[in-house]
Amino acid sequence: MSRIITIGRQFGSGGRELGRRLAQELKIEYYDREILGRIAEDTALAEEYIQNVLERQPHNLLPITVGRSFAYVENYAFQQAQSVYQSQTRILRELAEKTDCVIIGRCADYILRELKPLRIFVYADDESRVRRCMEHRREDEAAVTEKQMLRRIRSMDKERTRYYDFYTGLKWGDKNNYDLCVNTSGKVIKELVPAIAKLFD
Amino acid sequence: MSRIITIGRQFGSGGRELGRRLAQELKIEYYDREILGRIAEDTALAEEYIQNVLERQPHNLLPITVGRSFAYVENYAFQQAQSVYQSQTRILRELAEKTDCVIIGRCADYILRELKPLRIFVYADDESRVRRCMEHRREDEAAVTEKQMLRRIRSMDKERTRYYDFYTGLKWGDKNNYDLCVNTSGKVIKELVPAIAKLFD
Repeated sequence: MSRIITIGRQFGSGGRELGRRLAQELKIEYYDREILGRIAEDTALAEEYIQNVLERQPHNLLPITVGRSFAYVENYAFQQAQSVYQSQTRILRELAEKTDCVIIGRCADYILRELKPLRIFVYADDESRVRRCMEHRREDEAAVTEKQMLRRIRSMDKERTRYYDFYTGLKWGDKNNYDLCVNTSGKVIKELVPAIAKLFD
Repeated sequence: MSRIITIGRQFGSGGRELGRRLAQELKIEYYDREILGRIAEDTALAEEYIQNVLERQPHNLLPITVGRSFAYVENYAFQQAQSVYQSQTRILRELAEKTDCVIIGRCADYILRELKPLRIFVYADDESRVRRCMEHRREDEAAVTEKQMLRRIRSMDKERTRYYDFYTGLKWGDKNNYDLCVNTSGKVIKELVPAIAKLFD
């Protein structure tokens, strides 16, 4: 099996931890936020701006009258979102062709489909996700309540859905787009990793 | 982790093979069609009738005017379907409390939820499922075309959906109801099994 692994994940499901540990276990590269830096170099845009574009914006940047058609789009912000996405596509392909790796998010399952990656989707129930997010929250977020956290989770998932669906034409989190869907509710992620790694024996 | 494993599966996805091999690998019991025999003993109904009730009928047996309410149902066939389901529930609980096992279908993920089974759902794309079903078809079905096979697959899935949704109030195949969803498209099932078994190390 190809040792290129893409990880889609619900916010707070522990998909990032699972991916990181899996890369360690398999002794292969792990790509996550560092891809932003590479896109920044490639496009000469600021990382923060790119993060915003990649995680929140493309569909909003599209002028309403244009809908899904890419013809005659003159909106500058939208064009930039497109060029960020194209840069991301190029970079992901370069990375994956060069070396075995785990890639977190970024429509990598779709972008790299011709390389037949193992496409994993990680999810969990609300309770587990809220608990995980509360445990991992930053110090300056100590006052955030569980209810607020759940709202943030829902909002992040919505953004990921929009972004993924926009660029792939597929449905984010639909099991048919993945080889393996892993529910981390009530599980210890560290204990799941050796099993997934064994797929590559 | 509990070594009780339930396997829901799309028709033609190879879920049964995966379950059988997993039971062998883990050296635990495997329950599939033999449960029918036990229900037959328990209810004094014919196995064939039970199979029919379990796989095709309950929702159709319910008089339209009664809807989902169980009160005042005097329909004999419906009552029998209910008693078959109750018998199945009793038998599955007895089996699972006695010994580690893999159980195929039969809403076992839901019926045994208090025992916290590992709930697996096995699925695949149409192409893989048609191919698998064509390869495994009986001799007297040699003339069945791929198109006919796809129709049968759709129809079996529909029946499973109805049956599962009716008795559990959940959605059959919805990843949130499972711990692990395995896409067998283009995979060799034998090669997936050691990885799943490793979850129980």
